[in-house]
Amino acid sequence: MENRKLELIADFYEFTMANGYFVKNMDYIAYFDVFFRKIPDDGGYAIFAGLEQVIEFVKNLSFDDDDIEYLRSKNLFNEDFLNYLRNFKFTGDIYAVPEGTIVFPYEPLITVKAPIVEAQLLETALLLIINHQSLIATKTRRIVTAAKDIPVMEFGARRAHGADAAVYGARAAIIGGAVGTSCTVSAKNFDVPASGTMAHSWIQSFDSEYEAFKTYAEIYPNNCLFLIDTYDTLNSGLPNAIRVFDEVLKPQGIKPLGVRLDSGDLAYLSKEVRKRLDEAGYPEVGICATNSLDENLIQSLFEQDAKITSFGVGENLITAKSDPVFGGVYKLVAIEKERGTIIPKIKISENVAKITNPSFKKTVRFYSKETNKALADLIVLHDEVVQEGEYTIFDPANPWKKKVLTNYYTKELQVKIFDNGNLVYNSPALKDIAKYSKEDLDTFWDEVKRLYNPHNYFVDLSQNLYDLKQELLNNK
Amino acid sequence: MENRKLELIADFYEFTMANGYFVKNMDYIAYFDVFFRKIPDDGGYAIFAGLEQVIEFVKNLSFDDDDIEYLRSKNLFNEDFLNYLRNFKFTGDIYAVPEGTIVFPYEPLITVKAPIVEAQLLETALLLIINHQSLIATKTRRIVTAAKDIPVMEFGARRAHGADAAVYGARAAIIGGAVGTSCTVSAKNFDVPASGTMAHSWIQSFDSEYEAFKTYAEIYPNNCLFLIDTYDTLNSGLPNAIRVFDEVLKPQGIKPLGVRLDSGDLAYLSKEVRKRLDEAGYPEVGICATNSLDENLIQSLFEQDAKITSFGVGENLITAKSDPVFGGVYKLVAIEKERGTIIPKIKISENVAKITNPSFKKTVRFYSKETNKALADLIVLHDEVVQEGEYTIFDPANPWKKKVLTNYYTKELQVKIFDNGNLVYNSPALKDIAKYSKEDLDTFWDEVKRLYNPHNYFVDLSQNLYDLKQELLNNK
Repeated sequence: MENRKLELIADFYEFTMANGYFVKNMDYIAYFDVFFRKIPDDGGYAIFAGLEQVIEFVKNLSFDDDDIEYLRSKNLFNEDFLNYLRNFKFTGDIYAVPEGTIVFPYEPLITVKAPIVEAQLLETALLLIINHQSLIATKTRRIVTAAKDIPVMEFGARRAHGADAAVYGARAAIIGGAVGTSCTVSAKNFDVPASGTMAHSWIQSFDSEYEAFKTYAEIYPNNCLFLIDTYDTLNSGLPNAIRVFDEVLKPQGIKPLGVRLDSGDLAYLSKEVRKRLDEAGYPEVGICATNSLDENLIQSLFEQDAKITSFGVGENLITAKSDPVFGGVYKLVAIEKERGTIIPKIKISENVAKITNPSFKKTVRFYSKETNKALADLIVLHDEVVQEGEYTIFDPANPWKKKVLTNYYTKELQVKIFDNGNLVYNSPALKDIAKYSKEDLDTFWDEVKRLYNPHNYFVDLSQNLYDLKQELLNNK
Repeated sequence: MENRKLELIADFYEFTMANGYFVKNMDYIAYFDVFFRKIPDDGGYAIFAGLEQVIEFVKNLSFDDDDIEYLRSKNLFNEDFLNYLRNFKFTGDIYAVPEGTIVFPYEPLITVKAPIVEAQLLETALLLIINHQSLIATKTRRIVTAAKDIPVMEFGARRAHGADAAVYGARAAIIGGAVGTSCTVSAKNFDVPASGTMAHSWIQSFDSEYEAFKTYAEIYPNNCLFLIDTYDTLNSGLPNAIRVFDEVLKPQGIKPLGVRLDSGDLAYLSKEVRKRLDEAGYPEVGICATNSLDENLIQSLFEQDAKITSFGVGENLITAKSDPVFGGVYKLVAIEKERGTIIPKIKISENVAKITNPSFKKTVRFYSKETNKALADLIVLHDEVVQEGEYTIFDPANPWKKKVLTNYYTKELQVKIFDNGNLVYNSPALKDIAKYSKEDLDTFWDEVKRLYNPHNYFVDLSQNLYDLKQELLNNK
């Protein structure tokens, strides 16, 4: 899956625009922000993911003869531009929030500062990578939150939107808190556990369910998690599973992993299966539930006192079915015609939500010194210094709504990834990203983290940024 | 994007099961069906897509040293099995419905007949390819149906679930009736039109909107479709566009393509823009609408008499947002322990919808000789011959509901793709698949094709198949 050539994943207009900047000698420095406007599922926060793949893309971005020939065939592009592409190398700066960070609408997740031709060509790939992985990480965290302390495994490959959606969706699911994935290549590439046991086809391929379980136990005595719903869960699957536990595993002193329920009423069946497993002397043997689960069904199962010890979640996780679009955008926020002189840019819209925050910016997060909990985020101009001691934030939509922060410390969310085209950042291992994400989430109050009707975490603009935005809106 | 190594996209359990079959010398022939249970969005039909990528996958399926080493590291697999994988080549038969075909729940879309180890290893990839592309083709056709005669372009790459979702989603969108895509690599690989003009960043990077349009017109006089909502659609964007049409294009005798609306009230704005373009002497210049469109919004725009001449549809198409899961499954339906003796297999479930249709089957479509419209589909045993003249079909859920078909001709839906591992099918060009799909859809009555509450097209079982299923259910 590595070394993918994704240079032509770009929307065609990236090339027409880039050619336009090129032939008009617009060698400006452009600043583009990647940000999003709405948290999927009306959740309280999102999780930023996909940076490692963005880095790979930018690092490897180049155009080969075949690409050039295709573009040439369109009779739209200047030969000098095509020659420029043939020798393309990204030379700009990129800032980004580390993967796994808890993020909110309008915060610059990635900022690209580069010659405008270069910056334009990154748009589509950056967005599709970040939108996809942030979507799945955020959705997974909802499911994992509903599952409380019970492990969630990602089982969605077959319903993913193509191979990348399976592979990188599994990666994002791990960032969002899944403990393993059924997708072999993801487990391999990202060094995480590969989960899964048997499909109905295994059981059907034998003359009897008993024989299917027995054979499996002989081959994989340490991995016996039997799928018990092929014919009749309580009257066939479970008795056969227990019989094989007794006959094959018990004599060897091996503890069965458990049974899997994939259809029927999971609440009722899990309670009944638990009772019968306990009676058979298997009180520690697990019950894995699968079958179109999501955070709502999982919450409902708990309310019904279901006896489930692990969840396998497929289609609703891997497609983020309830809200499958993470609407990240890539917007021009400033240019430099002369080096060092930033000209802020704004995009106005009749949809107020679509108006952009101008100029080169960063996000500062305030934490309470007392509780170490996050208090508010503040989007500020990039060269602004946030004072210590006391800071008055205000709601940019209702500036009279003010709040005075005291006794805080601050952290800047973005770090530098590329400096003049040189990669200056090491992507952490996936496990470390997942650990960081959980720790980062722990700095938020439960009110922000609840699944429904969460508290709106404050994301405000500094006075300087607010004033600049008003000025541009008034002088458009 | 070609020559992807997807062999490890398989769910991990495919390998544990395959190893199990292998070490137990279960050299059975297995029959697996790919079918789905529910049409997305409660539509009247689905469009089958993705076969060409399935063929590529099966043809190229092999395992390299790196794959083998990873599997070996799990300490689960037999060395002879790993050696078998190292020399893997698919040797079975595959039957499938041609891409673009109109299909219905429970019909075998793909049937794999192969040694069970081989057949098992295909599961995940086949499902994810077919589920993804069939989903997007089906969704696109809903959008195209709503748009009536107005062209729909696929603009969704940035919101796709990873690169494959963009590339193959665009491919599926073309099958579903989109006239072009913004995704450059899809346009290139599948030889379809690349669509798109300019982003807001183009306009913002100039000192004025007028200058941005003028510059674009100088570079691309034949491709002027100006995005007019960056600052103020009616008071800035449209007057600037008309001025540039007048100043730059008119003197050269070049017809502008049009303007694009990407925010605001598209119904109102399109009517107002139409009026003003007409008044300015541009009655033939187009109005392209974008901004989170789908089939519902497009229908609503028509009801409001919006004046739109093309649609660019992004996130709602490329993620099939309203119902983003095409639930195709891969189920064992028969085995042969001795060559030539088919042992039918069934999967029973407490969810009746999850009970499978057993044995090696095919689907026969009945057409009226009078109207050439499709009358019903019949799933039959593979060796069944459907008589000419008269045929009584019945609803398998309510067998007393019968219907006598007369004056018909029939067509078998599946064709042979692989024969003993040899590819015996030529995938048509994408344009031809799209053309065929439209023609195939034309054989259905409007009642099946309407977007909401469509007529349930008959998909019945032959008496033989019905009887076999009942027998297996009664003797489980």
